[in-house]
This record gives sequence, structure tokens and C-alpha cells, in this order.
Amino acid sequence: MNTDNTVDKYEGIIVPMVTPLHSSGELDKKGTDRLIKHLINGGVHGIFILGTTGEASSLKPSLTKELIELSCKEANGRTKVLVGISHTSSDVSLKLAQIAKENGADAVVALTPYYFYLDQEELEQYYIHLADESPLPVFIYNFPRMTKLNLEPKTAEKLALHPNIIGLKDSSGNGVYLQKLLSIKKKRPDFSILVGPEEMLAQSVILGADGGVTGGANIFPELYVLLFEASKNKDWLLIDKIQEIIMEISEKIYSASPKNSAYFSGVKESLYHLGICEPHLAAPMIGIDPKSKESIYSHLDRIHSKIKKLKS
Amino acid sequence: MNTDNTVDKYEGIIVPMVTPLHSSGELDKKGTDRLIKHLINGGVHGIFILGTTGEASSLKPSLTKELIELSCKEANGRTKVLVGISHTSSDVSLKLAQIAKENGADAVVALTPYYFYLDQEELEQYYIHLADESPLPVFIYNFPRMTKLNLEPKTAEKLALHPNIIGLKDSSGNGVYLQKLLSIKKKRPDFSILVGPEEMLAQSVILGADGGVTGGANIFPELYVLLFEASKNKDWLLIDKIQEIIMEISEKIYSASPKNSAYFSGVKESLYHLGICEPHLAAPMIGIDPKSKESIYSHLDRIHSKIKKLKS
Amino acid sequence: MNTDNTVDKYEGIIVPMVTPLHSSGELDKKGTDRLIKHLINGGVHGIFILGTTGEASSLKPSLTKELIELSCKEANGRTKVLVGISHTSSDVSLKLAQIAKENGADAVVALTPYYFYLDQEELEQYYIHLADESPLPVFIYNFPRMTKLNLEPKTAEKLALHPNIIGLKDSSGNGVYLQKLLSIKKKRPDFSILVGPEEMLAQSVILGADGGVTGGANIFPELYVLLFEASKNKDWLLIDKIQEIIMEISEKIYSASPKNSAYFSGVKESLYHLGICEPHLAAPMIGIDPKSKESIYSHLDRIHSKIKKLKS
Amino acid sequence: MNTDNTVDKYEGIIVPMVTPLHSSGELDKKGTDRLIKHLINGGVHGIFILGTTGEASSLKPSLTKELIELSCKEANGRTKVLVGISHTSSDVSLKLAQIAKENGADAVVALTPYYFYLDQEELEQYYIHLADESPLPVFIYNFPRMTKLNLEPKTAEKLALHPNIIGLKDSSGNGVYLQKLLSIKKKRPDFSILVGPEEMLAQSVILGADGGVTGGANIFPELYVLLFEASKNKDWLLIDKIQEIIMEISEKIYSASPKNSAYFSGVKESLYHLGICEPHLAAPMIGIDPKSKESIYSHLDRIHSKIKKLKS
Repeated sequence: MNTDNTVDKYEGIIVPMVTPLHSSGELDKKGTDRLIKHLINGGVHGIFILGTTGEASSLKPSLTKELIELSCKEANGRTKVLVGISHTSSDVSLKLAQIAKENGADAVVALTPYYFYLDQEELEQYYIHLADESPLPVFIYNFPRMTKLNLEPKTAEKLALHPNIIGLKDSSGNGVYLQKLLSIKKKRPDFSILVGPEEMLAQSVILGADGGVTGGANIFPELYVLLFEASKNKDWLLIDKIQEIIMEISEKIYSASPKNSAYFSGVKESLYHLGICEPHLAAPMIGIDPKSKESIYSHLDRIHSKIKKLKS
Repeated sequence: MNTDNTVDKYEGIIVPMVTPLHSSGELDKKGTDRLIKHLINGGVHGIFILGTTGEASSLKPSLTKELIELSCKEANGRTKVLVGISHTSSDVSLKLAQIAKENGADAVVALTPYYFYLDQEELEQYYIHLADESPLPVFIYNFPRMTKLNLEPKTAEKLALHPNIIGLKDSSGNGVYLQKLLSIKKKRPDFSILVGPEEMLAQSVILGADGGVTGGANIFPELYVLLFEASKNKDWLLIDKIQEIIMEISEKIYSASPKNSAYFSGVKESLYHLGICEPHLAAPMIGIDPKSKESIYSHLDRIHSKIKKLKS
Repeated sequence: MNTDNTVDKYEGIIVPMVTPLHSSGELDKKGTDRLIKHLINGGVHGIFILGTTGEASSLKPSLTKELIELSCKEANGRTKVLVGISHTSSDVSLKLAQIAKENGADAVVALTPYYFYLDQEELEQYYIHLADESPLPVFIYNFPRMTKLNLEPKTAEKLALHPNIIGLKDSSGNGVYLQKLLSIKKKRPDFSILVGPEEMLAQSVILGADGGVTGGANIFPELYVLLFEASKNKDWLLIDKIQEIIMEISEKIYSASPKNSAYFSGVKESLYHLGICEPHLAAPMIGIDPKSKESIYSHLDRIHSKIKKLKS
Repeated sequence: MNTDNTVDKYEGIIVPMVTPLHSSGELDKKGTDRLIKHLINGGVHGIFILGTTGEASSLKPSLTKELIELSCKEANGRTKVLVGISHTSSDVSLKLAQIAKENGADAVVALTPYYFYLDQEELEQYYIHLADESPLPVFIYNFPRMTKLNLEPKTAEKLALHPNIIGLKDSSGNGVYLQKLLSIKKKRPDFSILVGPEEMLAQSVILGADGGVTGGANIFPELYVLLFEASKNKDWLLIDKIQEIIMEISEKIYSASPKNSAYFSGVKESLYHLGICEPHLAAPMIGIDPKSKESIYSHLDRIHSKIKKLKS
């Protein structure tokens, strides 16, 4: 068990990195390199590989391993690397944590298991086991819409007492839940609370959250870093301006098609349009139609101009 | 159709008033009088009768009418009166709106219908019909957990163009949804956005919402008014202090029992303990056990002391 | 309380009758008359007015009353009349039961209330209160998809001990639930179990259910009566032939459009095509597009021919 | 791709075998051997290892492999072996299918993926890919409550055209869904439809399903085989007698505790009480309390006596 994990606090923009893929399904290594450079240049505070945005659950084990190696090597200490180890079997998760450790990653992130209906006691024991055994500090990851399970604030509060559990990523989008989580920080101030939906980044940071895991930061890392800083500084004018762009990304880039996979296509097609990596989704998701792609590209260009104006 | 409804903006603390009942199920009129006095003395900006907290769906029509009359008479222009007209049949809703108008109420509030699975087009036409026919301005009321329907932000945006639709009460608790709603205000600044879960009151007002429909304001009206003002003024120290009490009310008063009706019992038992009205729930809900009641009373006393200290 | 309700058993095809409406929203009285004649001529064992198929929750009280009067008058003892009294307030339900009684109806049917999240104890007390006060025998109506509540088999078992609760209509579509319900009949053989989804009519009757509440019997009453009888007689060849048509009605008539209201339009447009009544849905539901209507009409003609062939 | 898979039809009782585990989490090999012998002696038509009842999603890969080897070896052609290959990544699934093939298994079973929200087109392509690549014939496995996805009957109909997709296991419990599935058999009679909830075994077989995947057959294999045969023969008296015991197992053995894991504990504790294998659940599930165990044991003894009487 890692014990010196409280040195650095996890705050700011942790990008839930997409997994660049060739149409064959293999890792687009050059694209991955370019993407990580793009993110580091954009000033992000960390990258979170193998999360939901990274389509981790769909990837084959060898590709997963390859991505951990490549990401850690490319990051090379210039930004934190968090590795998703979510799986329904904790043995598989712990093996991934071991690989993450060997490659120099900073922390691991684990969803509540996503097959059985577990109760709070089972979730608590699950995370305690993970935290006891993981060679890297552990983030809890709550995403009820995907896992069918909600880690209750009271359970999170108990788990926050474990020295190797250092934070929680909440993707519930629930404002009441977030308020309940924040009370944990009164007892353990270094416990890091990161919020999933990027539309809530500003409000969450203003309330006391430590940062956001914002998919759009794959495309526009600087924009989300700027919003994080504006939120920390309570710079209302700037927050307002950026929030408008964030909402436009949400509406125009992530909802270009009615398909469930629209968000994933939105991010990957944008990166493709920017020349960073291939746009292919991991099976079983299927990409969107050409018309929706065109819509993404044209909105992207307009949003890009707005961002440039913002910074000038 | 009412046309002079934009004179006053609906903002601040609009209390979703409980319906005081005798054990017979009849209206506790004296309790209702005392409660309204208590709320007006507490400085609330309006009362919303016949909402979810008012157990409106469980009440018989004669009691509903009685409550409208009594509330409007007691309020007597000293605070706004909003009347819930939610029903699955718009004819019943419009008859209630007529009664509300005749008694001098200020506005009506209507949930999305709560039986059939309706699509956005049907919801849009539903509200346009209500707004065309209602003699009082209309608030949309979104509460997906109860109605199984979510009024999408884009539908709300279209409806906000109707002159007799003056605002929306959102009880979804969803932070992303709120952000999407707020963009309506850029096009129609006087559109009033009120937020349901009181745990989100501060954050919502800070973001630009107009106020909250906060059940706890039945018990402690001044506290919620104070939080609203602190949030408007971005008085972070005060917000922090009050938010802690708000979370305690949420945890200790509303969750004293695992029953689904715990929130309703929490508010009504508190009012009973304060000597304001009878604690009985409307059938088919059944109250909580004696031990849970005792727990509410003792927590209430402690919270009361905290609030007194806060104000001194 | 009614006490002589066990004379007749409720079995066979109880048609959940649509409510024929003019485009103005008023009752299509002539259509209603023709429809009831059509059903009686088709040999159905009862009509159930003001159910989900009858769009009861959307109707105004005066129309509701009018429909009860008209239906009872037209039925005139030639078929049983069951009246839906479902509402979130039991006082409203009981007033409807009184009207039903005065007009000579045979029984009433009440959904679990459909707004609040109630527990089993609350549901039990709710039905006991209804049954104690209702002047007509009461059917429980379980439809979890619409009400968000599931009346557990154990609760149904307790309620079946009440002399004025004479049966249960289950629209859950859940085969395990049905098996659990059927065990009630071992203790109270005259307790009538009617099944909602018509696709399950045959299998349910074979297992021991007493009949079905089958929307398609509005269109083709004889077909469903024939299937009921074939199922009672375990006439496998005939069951197979009819079941194929039942599935075709389900697929082609009820699913002609992707709208949630497709089932309602399917039944009403069919009746319109047969010259029985107007096709208009009650607001807030909106009918389907012309192309879907055409599809219904042409499939209907084909199905009609098949039925004729079946009977010859 | 396998091509001679239509030789044998998959029908009868396919036991979703539990995975016997030591308290250490390792495979209880002797228990597994005894269990398979018990099942074969009970006359079951096949065993389905690594399904939901087998807690497959919680097991580590090495144990999974070990179980496949051991089961195939022990079955040794005396009963069919179906191997669950469900995973969110089809590469992992196909690797398991390869191992199954190498060990002599007969078929594989794959759930819809259980993390992302996939549409019907994605599900279709997913299964076509699996079927194209699998060295063993493939069963589709539909379990909406667990996977959040429902494979629509129309999609199943299309997939039934693939020569390497030989059947579907439906655990939805939905009687309408089953009726829709059964129409597939008119076009492809050898397509095997197996039903999950054992409470529905009799009714499903009577309707035309090929058999059941019945958890209780771990405990009482002969009982379920007898019910299958009685259902095939439409021996109503015997069906009634057995169905009563099936419902008692459902109520007393699977619902001994309110925990979500009660079913799993119910089966495993029963096997433990019968001296067949260890009772431990795979983490993250936690077993039930001692009192619930005692309740299981005593009910089990009573049920055992009833079964003996039945056969005599």
C-alpha cells in the first residue's frame, strides 16, 4: 500500500482521455502521443486514461496495457497520470493497478462494480479491499446511470478515512449529492472531489470541489483550465463567457446525433478534425453518420474562433 | 389570458407549504393560519400551496378549494400566493386556476402530467393550452422522479416565449439541467427559475437562478431567506455557515426514518413540535414511528439553537 | 359495503373500452353507443370503462360522469360494467364509485395511486379503505410501469381476504408475478385474476387466470372471446392460429408509429376505420401521422380477412 | 466458425451452475466435481457455467479458465456444457470461447454488453461479430435488469438468421417478450429459446419454449427435469404439484433475506447443507446472516421431503 500519497493534491482539470484507435481497433499510437502532447501543452493538471470516455470497458487487455505504458512514457512526469482500473472483478482491477504502478502512474480510479446490485456494505468492503491491495492511491468513481449503483455519501464518508483512498469522481450530475460529498472535506481536507459533467465544473469548483474530469478538455484543454482558474478566483465575468462556450460544446458537439454514442463521436471527431488522432470508436459502439460529422466540424470551427477571441 | 404578469419578478424563497390536517383528514384551519403568519413573519417571498410538499395529489377537491381560499385570505397581499394546479387532466387544472384567480392568488404552478408517457411535443402543446386558458400566469414544474417525464431544456426554451408562462420550478436536482435552463434567461431575463432541492439553493442562486422552493422554509423561514440573501450577495462565510445547517436539516429531519414519506413527516412533525399545526399526513401516506419522531424533535431543538446563534 | 358480490365470477374478456371523443374533446355519444353494441354483439364478458385504454386520467369530471351514465344505460345488464375509479385521492375515487353504483355498474377498478412512492403498508391501507367505503366490489389494478409502484403478491394475498376486494388486474407483463398471484386462488378460488397485456391472454388463462383485459377486443371482440374459450379448453391448434393474429395486431396496429401514444391511436384509428367511432385522443396525447394511419388501415383490412377465414 | 451446430437441439433443463468457492476465493474443485456429478445424476440436459448464477463477472480470469477445464473434464460428454463468455469487450469473450472450444464445451452464451447504452444496430453488429468469430455456437443472453439493455425481438429475429447463433436465453421475465420471441421459431424451428426465471419454466415450455435455465436445478436437478417433462407432456396434475414446490423454493430459499444477494446465498447455502460444496459467494457480494441460513436449511429439509413424496 502506498502511504505517501497526500503530498500532492489532485485538483484542476483531469482530462478523461479518449483512446485513439485505428479502424482496425488497434491503438493509434501516434495519435495518442499527439493527444497527450496537446493536453500537456494545454496546461491540464492530469490525464485520466481508461475511463468511460476512454471506452475502457470495450478494450482488449493487451491494448489496455499498451495504452498505460505509452501514456505514462509520454506524460513522463509532466502531468499526473490516473489510470482507470474499473472492472466487475477486483482481481482484474488490481492487476491493472499493478501495471499502472510499474509504469509510473500516479493513481488509479475504480467505478463501483457494474453488474450485480450491491448494497452499501458490499460497496464499502469492495473499496476497502481495493485500497488495501492497490499499490497506487485509489479514487472512487460514482456513475449511477452506468453502474445502476449509487455510492451513498455516508459510505463515501467512511471510505474517506482510508489513507489509500484519496478522492472521488462523481459523474452523477446531482447537485444535492455533491453538497453531501463536500462535507467530507471538513473532516479530511485533502480528499479530492472531482466532478464529471463539465457543464457543472464552474459551479462545483465555486462550491468547493477540487476540479473536474471534463471530456471537452480533450479538444480544448486550455479552455477548461481557464474555467477552472476563473472558478477558483470567482472571476464571474470570465466564468460567464466560458460557461457559454462550454454549453455550446455540450449542445453542438456532444449532441450532434440522437445516438447514445453521440458524446463519444463528438469528442473523437473533433480531435480528428483538429488533426490529432483517428476518430474510430471501439466496438460495440458505432460512429455517427456523415451529416452529423459535418455538423460537428462546422460548429467546432466556430467554437474555436470564439475561444481565440476569448483569449485575446 | 393575464397580460400584466411581468410586473413583479418571482424571486427569493417561495415556500412549498405543507397542508396542515387534522387526524380526520380535514383541514387544520387554525394551523394553516398560524403557519402562514409564521411564514410571512419569516420574510418569505411567496407561498406555494398545493405542491408536492402540500400533498396536493392526495387531497379531496373540497379541501383543496378551502385551502386556496384560506391561504389567499390570510396572505392578504402580504406575500405572493402561488397555487399548484397539477393534475393529469388540464380541465381540472384550469378549474383550479379559476378558483385561484377568484381568490386573488398571484400565479399557478403545473407539473407535467404524471400518468402517461408523453413526448416533448405533447408536453409543449399541453403547456401552451394551459397558458392560453389560465387566468393567472403559469409556472412550469419539472419533477422527473415523480412524473416519469423530463421537460427538456429546449422545450422549456420554446415555452418561455409564451407571455403567460413566467417561470419554471425544477426539482430534478440535476446540475447540468439547471445550467441549460439558465441560458433561457439570456433571451428572457424576467423568466423566473426556481430550484427545488433546498440543498442546492445557494449554488443555484449563485449561478443565476431566481430562488428556491425550499420545504425547510416551512419550519425555519428566516434561515432560508438569509441563505437566499447571502447567496445573492455572494457572502461566502455566511453561505458556508448556513449551508451546514441546511445539510443537517436534510440529514436529520428529512431522513429520520427509512420510509419514503420521511421528508413529509420531517416537516410536519417539526411544525407540530413548534406548536404551529397538526402533524398528520394525508392518506395514503402513513406517518413515521414514535422513535423517529423523538429523533426529529431533539435534532430540531439543537438546530434551532444553532440558528439563534447564527443570527446573534 | 356491498356484500353479495361473489354471486358472479368475473372471468373472460373484459374490454378496456376506449373513450370515443369528438375533436372538440367532448364525448362522442353515438360512437360510444355503437361501440358498446359492437362489444356486446361480440360476446364479451364485460366492459371496463375509464381505464388506461380509456384515457381516464386525461378526461374532465363531467365527461367521466357522462360516460358512466351512458355506458351503464347502453349495457343495460347485457354485459358487466366495470368502472375505473383510479385517482391519487381516494375521496375522488370513492365519489366515482358512488356514481358507478347509482348508474348500476357492477364493480370498480382502482390503480395503486400514481404520484407518491408508497410502501406496501401504505398500499394495503389504501385498498382496505377503498374496499371498506366502496358501494361496489373493488378490483385492484397493478401497472408498475405507469404508477412506479408494484403491489407485491404478498400484499395482494392479504387484500384478497377482504370480502369487497374481488379481483386483481395485472398489467405488469411479468410472468413470475402472475405465478405468485395465482397462488392466491388456492385460498380464495373466487378471487378473479385478469391479465393486462393481451399477448399473454392465452398463456395466462392456461395457467389459471380468469381472463384478460384486452385492448384489441375493442376492435375484434369475437376474436378475443374465441381465444379465451380456446385457452379454457386447451384447444392448442386454435390457440396457435389466433395467437398469431394477436401478435400481428400487437405489431402492426399498436406499433404503427414510434410515438408513445401509438397503442391508443392504433385502437382508436381501427375503430374509426370500422365506422364505429371518432379517432381523436384526449389531450395531452397527440395522434399519429397520416402515413401511420394508412398503415393501420391496410393492416386492419388484412387482419380482418384472416379473422373471417378463421371463423369459417 | 462452427457449422455442424444444428445436430443437437438445446432443450430441457440447462442448469446455470453456481461456482463453488473456498472462503479464500479459490475454486472449490472437489465441490465442483460433486456438483457436476449431482447434476448429471439428476438428469439435466446441460450445464451452463459462468453465467449470472455462476457469478462470472466477479471471478478472476485464472479461476474462470480452471472452471471451464474442470467442468468439461467432469462432464466428459455426459451432458452438454455451455460456457458463459459475457464481457463488455468482445475480445475477452472470444478468448473465453476459444478456451471453451479447446476443452470440448458445446456452446457459448453471451449477454448483451453491460456498460454502455447501445442501440439495436450496435447490439446486432456486436452479436454478428461474436458469431462470426466464435469457434463454438453462440447463445444470445437477454437480461435487461442487469445490463440496462433489451435486445428487441426484431433484432433477435435478424440474428436468428446467422447459422452460428443457435438460441437465446431470456431472463426478462416478460411474458409479452417471450411471445414475440416464439414467433422466431416459425422461421427457424431449431432456434432454441430458453427461459430464465424458473417460476416461468412450465408456462414457457407449454407455450413452445425449448427449456429453462433454472437456478434451483443446482439443488434439485430431478425436480426441474420432471417439471420440464410434465410441461412437454402437458401433464396438468403433475405440473400443478411441482409448480407449488417451485414457488416455495422461490419464496423460502431465494428470499430468506432482504439482501440483493439472497438468491445466490439461497442456492449456495442449500448446496452446502446438502454436503455438495462450500457456500461462499464471490466478492463483492457478501453472504447472508446466520438466522437466514438457518431458515434456508429448515425450509430445504421440508421441501426435500415434499419432493420425495412427489416421486413416490
